Amino acid sequence: MWKARIEIMLKKSVLDPQGQAVEGALHSLGYDNVRSVRVGKYLEVDIDGGDKEAAGAQVREMCERLLANTVIEDYTFTVTEVQR
Amino acid sequence: MWKARIEIMLKKSVLDPQGQAVEGALHSLGYDNVRSVRVGKYLEVDIDGGDKEAAGAQVREMCERLLANTVIEDYTFTVTEVQR
Repeated sequence: MWKARIEIMLKKSVLDPQGQAVEGALHSLGYDNVRSVRVGKYLEVDIDGGDKEAAGAQVREMCERLLANTVIEDYTFTVTEVQR
Repeated sequence: MWKARIEIMLKKSVLDPQGQAVEGALHSLGYDNVRSVRVGKYLEVDIDGGDKEAAGAQVREMCERLLANTVIEDYTFTVTEVQR
């Protein structure tokens, strides 16, 4: 079985108000050396069968079709083998 | 400058309805070999100054105090040096 770990972030050119809110909260807690916060999504998807290449291709397709909004979001992922 | 990449997930023992919804959507798109989906948060936090150890300690403290709800969530992070 394959485990895909997918990180989905707003593109750099897109404003991230959630990240700004978290940055403001960190500053108000005294963490003045925090310079930038961006908030995104993280998904772990388990995939049965196939080889690593096929699993990677499937993850890319799932990101393009459903998981990420590629107009405003970028995604990266890794695929690793795991025991059931 | 240090870049912390933080992954925050619901603990395994906590139900993840968002993950179940994504899993159902993937199945309905024909991805029948998807076994489990868990959805979490991903944050990138830039931290000024200090050494790697201090940055890591600060990230852990920020997770405990603000970023993660450690009653129901687990977090992992990496810290890497980046150029401004």
